[in-house]
Amino acid sequence: MVLPIQIDPHGAVPIYLQIVQQVREKIVSGELPEGTLLPPERTLARYLGVNRSTVVHAYRELKRNALVEARVGHGTTVLAPAVAAFEPNGDGPLPWRLLFRQSVRQGSDPLVRDLLEMAGRQDVIPLSVGLPSPELLPLEAMERVGEAVRGRLGPMSLLQCPTEGVPEFREELARWMGQQGIAASADEVLVLSGSQQGLDLAARVFIDPQDIVVMDEPTYFGALEAFRGARARIIAVPSDEEGMVTEVLASVLQRHRPKLIYTLPTYKNPAGNVMSLARRRHLLELAARYQVPILEDDPYSPLRYDGDSIPSLKAMDRDGVVIYLSTFSKILFPGLRLGWLVAPPSVVRQFALVKQGVDLHSDTPGQWLMTEFLREGLLTRHLAEVRRHYARRRDLMHRALQGTAPEGVHWQRPQGGFYVWCRLPPQVERSRLVAAAAEAGVSFLPGWSCYVEDPDDSFIRLNFSFPPEDRIETGVARLMEAVARSSAGFRSMAGRGTGTRPIV
Amino acid sequence: MVLPIQIDPHGAVPIYLQIVQQVREKIVSGELPEGTLLPPERTLARYLGVNRSTVVHAYRELKRNALVEARVGHGTTVLAPAVAAFEPNGDGPLPWRLLFRQSVRQGSDPLVRDLLEMAGRQDVIPLSVGLPSPELLPLEAMERVGEAVRGRLGPMSLLQCPTEGVPEFREELARWMGQQGIAASADEVLVLSGSQQGLDLAARVFIDPQDIVVMDEPTYFGALEAFRGARARIIAVPSDEEGMVTEVLASVLQRHRPKLIYTLPTYKNPAGNVMSLARRRHLLELAARYQVPILEDDPYSPLRYDGDSIPSLKAMDRDGVVIYLSTFSKILFPGLRLGWLVAPPSVVRQFALVKQGVDLHSDTPGQWLMTEFLREGLLTRHLAEVRRHYARRRDLMHRALQGTAPEGVHWQRPQGGFYVWCRLPPQVERSRLVAAAAEAGVSFLPGWSCYVEDPDDSFIRLNFSFPPEDRIETGVARLMEAVARSSAGFRSMAGRGTGTRPIV
Repeated sequence: MVLPIQIDPHGAVPIYLQIVQQVREKIVSGELPEGTLLPPERTLARYLGVNRSTVVHAYRELKRNALVEARVGHGTTVLAPAVAAFEPNGDGPLPWRLLFRQSVRQGSDPLVRDLLEMAGRQDVIPLSVGLPSPELLPLEAMERVGEAVRGRLGPMSLLQCPTEGVPEFREELARWMGQQGIAASADEVLVLSGSQQGLDLAARVFIDPQDIVVMDEPTYFGALEAFRGARARIIAVPSDEEGMVTEVLASVLQRHRPKLIYTLPTYKNPAGNVMSLARRRHLLELAARYQVPILEDDPYSPLRYDGDSIPSLKAMDRDGVVIYLSTFSKILFPGLRLGWLVAPPSVVRQFALVKQGVDLHSDTPGQWLMTEFLREGLLTRHLAEVRRHYARRRDLMHRALQGTAPEGVHWQRPQGGFYVWCRLPPQVERSRLVAAAAEAGVSFLPGWSCYVEDPDDSFIRLNFSFPPEDRIETGVARLMEAVARSSAGFRSMAGRGTGTRPIV
Repeated sequence: MVLPIQIDPHGAVPIYLQIVQQVREKIVSGELPEGTLLPPERTLARYLGVNRSTVVHAYRELKRNALVEARVGHGTTVLAPAVAAFEPNGDGPLPWRLLFRQSVRQGSDPLVRDLLEMAGRQDVIPLSVGLPSPELLPLEAMERVGEAVRGRLGPMSLLQCPTEGVPEFREELARWMGQQGIAASADEVLVLSGSQQGLDLAARVFIDPQDIVVMDEPTYFGALEAFRGARARIIAVPSDEEGMVTEVLASVLQRHRPKLIYTLPTYKNPAGNVMSLARRRHLLELAARYQVPILEDDPYSPLRYDGDSIPSLKAMDRDGVVIYLSTFSKILFPGLRLGWLVAPPSVVRQFALVKQGVDLHSDTPGQWLMTEFLREGLLTRHLAEVRRHYARRRDLMHRALQGTAPEGVHWQRPQGGFYVWCRLPPQVERSRLVAAAAEAGVSFLPGWSCYVEDPDDSFIRLNFSFPPEDRIETGVARLMEAVARSSAGFRSMAGRGTGTRPIV
């Protein structure tokens, strides 16, 4: 089926709106039934002879109106129009879709769900996720510690605890922080149900709709989700190999009054790089001068393989402007859902008051388990062990890329963390690549999901911690083949000129 | 110290504002330093010769401005004025209090935290909390099941899972729901990190600021918190022994367009009663007619001691208007933080998309534990056991009240759940009672926290599930003594006339 759209480039109606209106009509009339795949943005742009950003804009508007949905590896598909939801359906008589808040209907991105799902498929080598290696988890030590805890505490290990967390756990976390160069007392520690909760609570505590949050791009997808969910205005500051470009931040702070600066400075998700010491100093100085708190997300710093050890912003924070966030999900069992936050006591109190209304408190058995695990020094021992393995996996991936990457693919060997950030040559088409990779049996994270407004298509994120060591080479080879195929296909199509009508 | 306020009853400024202005001045000037206890509302009202609601209004305004703070058992105390927060303090240079959202600063109530804290004190008999008995928890069965699960699954039991929950757990929950008369498939079940998360997600999915939520009073404190946090306008519908007065609901639905009706119809928290079958039918009919979803909160229905078994709203729901919420926190280990929701698949999908940004997914080990616990039929066996014990505790409390309650105290013997709801005689002063009970070594939940706008002082909630069986009689006796003392004290003070200046 061809997408029969007529564009009047000289009409009064902006072109993107012409596209929106015509597609909307076709959806409401049933001409484009639910599930119909719309052509990729780039393809439609070429076909109509308009800028790609015009089509991006139009699709975004259609998404906002809940007329279409964009899913990874599926492209943009037509949804049942909302009016139809008024009719009785499998969900009963309520027009549920219309009852949901508009901001929620349009705000959520099924990306993470799709990726988790795909990573679970047997035939796919998962380079897309951000998880520790299941084979390296200290299951026996955990089992032993668990038995000890349950024996000593009895039912107590399964009862309620204060919203702030099990006191003994907060003590151990404060001690652990001390070993990471961060001086903190137990009442400066708040236990979280994973660090994602810290992002969500920060949004709730600080952000009213339209408040400004500053982030350095590319940034962590989950943080984008949390602040978008709170309807923040997000201002992106660029970053380079040295991390956030603080000169740009300075001029942003001069012109705006953000409520928060979010950054993940060490072995960044997704780019894998480290913010330099000079930039860290500058960032702290700016935050203190403009009185804007920094939310430092630091899940990866214990996973250093080589290069200098660089102190966290919190460790360097003489002025008390940093709220520090971390988690065990990247270094231990991600199913435990335990994170923590370090901040001045009044901030911990305010966060705890909000957390109380969100989930009362975090899972208690896990807190006791980790208390004992930390107390026995098992985390330090475990980290020494996994660092060796992950360093080897990183090298495997680096060499596999050197051996198989087509010309024009660029990356840097990271010094720690989980990720290799690859720049692809411009002729690779993103939607084709997602599909080609899925076909080849390998997954990756498309870089565009890590940008605030103008998605940069040219990057992909590869993970080396989760896939089995002996699958990394094959995974990379499959992916680079898919990259090559996606470029070649693009070239041959482009060769056919604009006369070719794309199939919807 | 006397509170030196001059009221001009004939002035242009409303009286409550005169109070606010004068107290604010005294706080900012330092005349009322941080920590100063303000007189109870009723006392100040008598002293100034104004309506109590005027003082309530004034105190609320002062709270909104973050000038005072009201805490259970502590009364209303003066906070450090916000301007002072600009000066360097222990929290560093940032004016944290001013950076927090105003709605968050004023919205949170430290009540639950205070109660949990107090319930943990050795010298206090805790009648205030809503928790299962720690002595009755099936620790050995749980330990055995845990070993089996970890043995069979290995590290899998500690890894990530989909946002919707471990698939096997959703299957077991669907089966469990079937046994409770609710036909549901696994894709209609969403696993939650406790049912409080269900309330919070419902608020996020449905409520924009100023949207209307209907609740029957008295209502569950945690639900009030969740919807207030979303800045909903809450409209209260009264309830009697038969539950929500649906005739009033009908007229509310005619005049307003609420986004949600919240109710806890079975062994209600706090009132302990059951909504009648006729009212349930009427409620469902109204919800379908006006197309308003019902959020049914149902943590207590498995705890029936006598009386008829009444189907849940969800079980009676032919039109698909009910979102059903429950939890294991009341019948098993509250530290596990596992709840679930049953709703049409499109609702489950939307809730899951929001949950993803909140905490990615719920604790996995607990989900596997409960999967096995349900599969082996252990929950059914456990419930039969605890029902016998709780019925006996309820009777103990009922008889203790019969033996010790002063004249004018009224209550009903509940047929299930956790709570006895007592009406006190009008001469008992609430703030005196909280203090007198704390002194006597017993805690309770003041009923005023369960009302939407006009707190009714005359009720208190007593819990019989959590305190050790042999402490219930003493606890009730201590409390009823405190009740008697609080009334007598009031009478003698009232006898002194308005000439007596209250001490601040």
